[in-house]
Amino acid sequence: MAADPSSSSTGQHADDFCAAPPEDARQTAMSGPLNVRGERRPPPMQRAFSRQVSLGSGVTVLGMDRGGRNGGGRGQRALPRSGRSLGVLNHSGALGAAGGDGAARRGDFSMFRTKSTLSKQNSLLPTRIRESDLELPTHVEDQSVGRPAEDPLNKSVPAGRYFAALRGPELDEVRDYEDILLPKDEVWPFLLRFPIGCFGVCLGLGSQAILWGSLAASPAMRFLHVTPMINVALWLLAVAVLVATSVTYALKCVFYFEAIRREYFHPVRVNFFFAPWIAAMFITIGLPRAYAPERPHPAVWCAFVLPLFALELKIYGQWLSGGKRRLCKVANPSSHLSVVGNFVGAILAARVGWAEAGKFLWAIGVAHYIVVFVTLYQRLPTNEALPKELHPVYSMFIATPSAASLAWAAIYGSFDAVARTFFFMAIFLYLSLVVRINFFRGFRFSLAWWSYTFPMTTASLATVKYAEAEPCFASRALALSLSLMSTTMVSLLLVSTLLHAFIWRSLFPNDLAIAITKDRQNGAVKPSGKGKRTSKRVHDIKRWAKQAPLSLVSSITKSNSADKEEEEKTE
Amino acid sequence: MAADPSSSSTGQHADDFCAAPPEDARQTAMSGPLNVRGERRPPPMQRAFSRQVSLGSGVTVLGMDRGGRNGGGRGQRALPRSGRSLGVLNHSGALGAAGGDGAARRGDFSMFRTKSTLSKQNSLLPTRIRESDLELPTHVEDQSVGRPAEDPLNKSVPAGRYFAALRGPELDEVRDYEDILLPKDEVWPFLLRFPIGCFGVCLGLGSQAILWGSLAASPAMRFLHVTPMINVALWLLAVAVLVATSVTYALKCVFYFEAIRREYFHPVRVNFFFAPWIAAMFITIGLPRAYAPERPHPAVWCAFVLPLFALELKIYGQWLSGGKRRLCKVANPSSHLSVVGNFVGAILAARVGWAEAGKFLWAIGVAHYIVVFVTLYQRLPTNEALPKELHPVYSMFIATPSAASLAWAAIYGSFDAVARTFFFMAIFLYLSLVVRINFFRGFRFSLAWWSYTFPMTTASLATVKYAEAEPCFASRALALSLSLMSTTMVSLLLVSTLLHAFIWRSLFPNDLAIAITKDRQNGAVKPSGKGKRTSKRVHDIKRWAKQAPLSLVSSITKSNSADKEEEEKTE
Amino acid sequence: MAADPSSSSTGQHADDFCAAPPEDARQTAMSGPLNVRGERRPPPMQRAFSRQVSLGSGVTVLGMDRGGRNGGGRGQRALPRSGRSLGVLNHSGALGAAGGDGAARRGDFSMFRTKSTLSKQNSLLPTRIRESDLELPTHVEDQSVGRPAEDPLNKSVPAGRYFAALRGPELDEVRDYEDILLPKDEVWPFLLRFPIGCFGVCLGLGSQAILWGSLAASPAMRFLHVTPMINVALWLLAVAVLVATSVTYALKCVFYFEAIRREYFHPVRVNFFFAPWIAAMFITIGLPRAYAPERPHPAVWCAFVLPLFALELKIYGQWLSGGKRRLCKVANPSSHLSVVGNFVGAILAARVGWAEAGKFLWAIGVAHYIVVFVTLYQRLPTNEALPKELHPVYSMFIATPSAASLAWAAIYGSFDAVARTFFFMAIFLYLSLVVRINFFRGFRFSLAWWSYTFPMTTASLATVKYAEAEPCFASRALALSLSLMSTTMVSLLLVSTLLHAFIWRSLFPNDLAIAITKDRQNGAVKPSGKGKRTSKRVHDIKRWAKQAPLSLVSSITKSNSADKEEEEKTE
Repeated sequence: MAADPSSSSTGQHADDFCAAPPEDARQTAMSGPLNVRGERRPPPMQRAFSRQVSLGSGVTVLGMDRGGRNGGGRGQRALPRSGRSLGVLNHSGALGAAGGDGAARRGDFSMFRTKSTLSKQNSLLPTRIRESDLELPTHVEDQSVGRPAEDPLNKSVPAGRYFAALRGPELDEVRDYEDILLPKDEVWPFLLRFPIGCFGVCLGLGSQAILWGSLAASPAMRFLHVTPMINVALWLLAVAVLVATSVTYALKCVFYFEAIRREYFHPVRVNFFFAPWIAAMFITIGLPRAYAPERPHPAVWCAFVLPLFALELKIYGQWLSGGKRRLCKVANPSSHLSVVGNFVGAILAARVGWAEAGKFLWAIGVAHYIVVFVTLYQRLPTNEALPKELHPVYSMFIATPSAASLAWAAIYGSFDAVARTFFFMAIFLYLSLVVRINFFRGFRFSLAWWSYTFPMTTASLATVKYAEAEPCFASRALALSLSLMSTTMVSLLLVSTLLHAFIWRSLFPNDLAIAITKDRQNGAVKPSGKGKRTSKRVHDIKRWAKQAPLSLVSSITKSNSADKEEEEKTE
Repeated sequence: MAADPSSSSTGQHADDFCAAPPEDARQTAMSGPLNVRGERRPPPMQRAFSRQVSLGSGVTVLGMDRGGRNGGGRGQRALPRSGRSLGVLNHSGALGAAGGDGAARRGDFSMFRTKSTLSKQNSLLPTRIRESDLELPTHVEDQSVGRPAEDPLNKSVPAGRYFAALRGPELDEVRDYEDILLPKDEVWPFLLRFPIGCFGVCLGLGSQAILWGSLAASPAMRFLHVTPMINVALWLLAVAVLVATSVTYALKCVFYFEAIRREYFHPVRVNFFFAPWIAAMFITIGLPRAYAPERPHPAVWCAFVLPLFALELKIYGQWLSGGKRRLCKVANPSSHLSVVGNFVGAILAARVGWAEAGKFLWAIGVAHYIVVFVTLYQRLPTNEALPKELHPVYSMFIATPSAASLAWAAIYGSFDAVARTFFFMAIFLYLSLVVRINFFRGFRFSLAWWSYTFPMTTASLATVKYAEAEPCFASRALALSLSLMSTTMVSLLLVSTLLHAFIWRSLFPNDLAIAITKDRQNGAVKPSGKGKRTSKRVHDIKRWAKQAPLSLVSSITKSNSADKEEEEKTE
Repeated sequence: MAADPSSSSTGQHADDFCAAPPEDARQTAMSGPLNVRGERRPPPMQRAFSRQVSLGSGVTVLGMDRGGRNGGGRGQRALPRSGRSLGVLNHSGALGAAGGDGAARRGDFSMFRTKSTLSKQNSLLPTRIRESDLELPTHVEDQSVGRPAEDPLNKSVPAGRYFAALRGPELDEVRDYEDILLPKDEVWPFLLRFPIGCFGVCLGLGSQAILWGSLAASPAMRFLHVTPMINVALWLLAVAVLVATSVTYALKCVFYFEAIRREYFHPVRVNFFFAPWIAAMFITIGLPRAYAPERPHPAVWCAFVLPLFALELKIYGQWLSGGKRRLCKVANPSSHLSVVGNFVGAILAARVGWAEAGKFLWAIGVAHYIVVFVTLYQRLPTNEALPKELHPVYSMFIATPSAASLAWAAIYGSFDAVARTFFFMAIFLYLSLVVRINFFRGFRFSLAWWSYTFPMTTASLATVKYAEAEPCFASRALALSLSLMSTTMVSLLLVSTLLHAFIWRSLFPNDLAIAITKDRQNGAVKPSGKGKRTSKRVHDIKRWAKQAPLSLVSSITKSNSADKEEEEKTE
């Protein structure tokens, strides 16, 4: 192989960013596997070995690779350290239990670390290693010039890759033929397994709190004699869950910012970044009246709407003018989440007394709702095919018109023609999904299911409002039955969640979706390729652990600018 | 050929679901052409012969095949029996006159028979034949296992096939290079030639009845002094035509349910399944006031809207979440028919006094109207190119906004901004089509033309309403001229229809659109293929005649479930 | 080459509409370069020479070709004659200064001449030449039969070609590898360099005049104490510019109708054909109240709206039903210009007192606005990728909702929910573009920039109206800041324009966009093709100069019918 480096290795460099270096680079790599700029250069001995390893056992090879390096006695700190030092979230114990031979088989999770943490650590590396790098500057330069964008994390993963590599109800399972960057057979650090979708629980509970407050207070539903205490209890639960989720996710943000970036580029997940703010607005709207009869201060509205608005400017701008994340490509039912926030914000604006701000949000919402609605209904061929398991996401279709209806009624003060039109649209879409109940069966429980409860609850809320406007038997019966359905759903999910969390301890499986490789691997595409596959999962061994919690802001800034660059690369 | 069954026959089995069985199956086939499970196994003698027959004369071979079998004295009842026994619709006479040599040249129409009829008949077959089937179970099993989905009717025809194989104003003519399942040179049974598009006549006449009732009653058009008698006459005519059409189509439903399934999968025809209910609602709305001054009972509304609503749930659901019938693919101007029903239903709801139900339908209508309107205007590349002859369908563009305008005015009680916006949209689209008058010339008359009269009439009706709201010279002149145009159109079509029906007897040509093959045939694609083409139109000889009129419901159920299966096969 | 005319020339005729004639036609061509039907047959001597010329120097060859012919002493009138005789617009002086060696290097601009002018001139040619044509009728017939559509101008350039061959902020720069029909290194006649985009200046100034009138008159902005004199001054300036632009463009229409046709087929430029009428309506709306306090006569509305309406019927019809100019393909932000005219027309209709006509236009506008908005937001893959430099066009997104908001308020008399929804949409889109300020930097100044001022001004106007409806500090501050921004922008552009016009004399560069070839040239696609490339830019030497100003109408008619033919060629 060393005899024809141009044909074998150079050719692979062209299409495989993780290709092993040619054999004659062995000396270099052995003496200094780390270089200053962070290029990956694995010890070629293991590389040469891994070439003979089949696709299926690639993960094992990776583990050995790591183990070999860790066992090499170079004094590198094992990765899970940082997790262990978190104290509160003792994921390292679970990790140790899963990885049979301890440190030797532990995955390299440092690649998802916050970057500035890593670079700061690099500067703390023993000088000897860095010197050995500098001894062979030509090689380093060659490689860094030849493949400047090889870092699997530096560049964002294109949207199409997520659709290609993933499947499942939330694009959260990896297809069989795909390799991932992290070990599949090991339990990852808790924070890495904590997806943004967890805010769905807050959405579900927050909207339930509003619903029961509304059922207790609405004159149309007075015949039910609902006690406001249910509202209070649900509200407290919702607040507790929101606080816990937010704190946990903030910690993830601090320690694994790269993982969050990957969630941000995930075509389904990105929409869940709206969820925290929507959940917070639900909490504010659902505030039990006994405790806070007055209207909230407009500052609350600003606090929750401004981040949401900034995110909207970003996401809608991507659709309209930026890069390759065209709406016709990334649209999927969860895109409704990016629209529904406007309407919830409008409701809150009406609650705090800023009707004009509410009208502003409503206008943004309806404009983009039309776009999303038409795009989703058309199911353009560029919309990467939604797998069958994504069907639950269709319930999102109900949320937006319901919220639009409620918001219009809240802003303009009456449940008039516009509000009714949106309300009836929601009811029709509800019906349309109910008759397709098969779509919603047979899927594994996951936390993401929670986000499907809030459309049902929103529809129930809109029906209660409608029943106020048109108090007759039919409307009240509809309101009652929808409310019961949504509450039943929430109760079932609550029980399931508690069972998974405390009995089966399976609430947070490995979040494979964030660990897909940037490109489909050669070996995966052509499993029959003979011996040409070289090991590809050579991790950036520079990115290892030590906490640098204060580096969050700088890395966000850095990431945003990188993001901006990518966005401006229009075709 | 028997020497290499794997190369010749197995290879063809893969891509040709109608391939003849290998020669060595002759014994089996001869002794028992029918087996229990309904696999097609034709007498191989004729098959061997038909292999030497060119594509063009395939129909003749088919006829001979049938004839040979009928002449074989196995006591099978000839197909047209059922038709003949209908008594009223003597199509068998016409059939006999067309097929020169009587039974020997008659086509095999049994494939479009209602399925349960066929299976019931199979159970009545002489036991000997079924036993002879069982004598050779291996062959039967081989074939049923090897080609489980070969039945040209069991599986629905994909939407793309209709666009590929058909052309003409209503996708009702077969392209030259296409084979069809039924003989082209023979007159088919009347019921097979009676398309769903015939309800277009009812739409045209029903809307005219409403128009003349409105012209007679509207204060804005009082200067015309229209007698209400025109309304009465038109209404009676419309009722008579609707009843006749419905009865005939119900008979088709009973006897040729498979043909109806094929119409249902036709991308243009499927929208005409909304027509019967819309026509019935037109009749109810157009009820002469002298005879029924009160408002109709809401049960009438339920009776007509419920089937329409169920169909909508089905069709819109297909667009949104089901299978491959994506809106971006199947959208065509006749899709407006699937939307306009909501608005007509809303008008009827206002008439019976259920304003909220009307608002519900209006909301569904407007949501899907936006989707259809945008999709049609974009003319996505996935929208299979509409042939030039489909241009008349563009008149459908006028119908929906006109109806939306009328419906809004009826529900909300005033011809306000919303109603005017839709009305003016309709007027602009009308104008836009009028200046493209060339689009609408040079096409052969067909019954489908009738469906293009109802948009004109609906626009006239909306203009009359507008003239009531804005009584000035211009609006009255517009109302008058549009009314005259639509009435002229209807009169011309009425005369044409009568001429075609009773003078030229060409009103119901063979409905080729339902008889296209499921896949494009090898021979058709490569007409120069040498000798590799074997006869493909080997019909399911199990599916022959005897009436089983009560099997309708069961077959509908069966068909629906098959349909559902297909729908859930998302890519 | 003469030995196998069928292989060499016929083959080239098939794919290259400008192929040189075979060598044996030399005699013919020499004796008579012009034939009756207008086929292009250049003197083959230069052709033979130009075959050895590389692609890059093709322009020079062309110039020599022309020069040779002009120098041949056949008494042909040099092209710029017509321009020179215009007197007022002394572009020939500039031309002479630019083209170094005078007539010998002058380009052949006659191909963009109005056609009927040319044919009339042909009939005035010396009889001898036409006779020499007739001496060799076989050759003439052969060529005319063999390549009936080879004329690079007879057929319209498909929309895709413009996207493929052009780049730049307004698709007005030619890609490097593209050949164009006119010499790049020469200054073209002034009229050829005067694009339709110049009406953007009128849009910007006209809307500014309205804005300052509104600032002076609006009760909400009274605190500014704006003098109405600014309005008057701006209005007079706007009128002067509009008159000058219109006269100039009318002259271009008379003399270079072919160039206008090419602008009409340009996917961005075609939308600017709406600009003159919109500018005229702006002028009418912005009429200083001191001078014309009454409402304008409705005839003014008719005069400006009717051409706009006719153009709309044409353009929208193309989207919906005609040819290959599908909306999903040609949609780009400048398509907003084709929609915004409706709203401006509606405002003017309200001003003249024809509210119903305004509602009509508003309905057309909103229907097509939804379509354009959704299409642009989806960014379908068929939407040819907008180059980065086209980003300024995104400001058009602001114009339409602002105008829709103003129009609704004008027609229905109050800034109600509908008007506010559109207004807030505009504000959001404004914000969305402001945060993407990088999109709008780094582009060369061009006259087209003017058209980006009018969206800003329209948004300011809508904000002033909003401040009237909601008089508070925030709304007034917003109105004031937006007004200042738009006025600053207009002032900057005014200064830039004056500098470019009178100091740098670079206001009107060669308008390369109209001179792209109909097909991408062989040589351009395969630069390595050996010797097979023959010179392609053999211009129609029949089309030379003499003015025939009255031929305008006939050529418009002719062009329209050709256009119609193309449109009806649906795929």
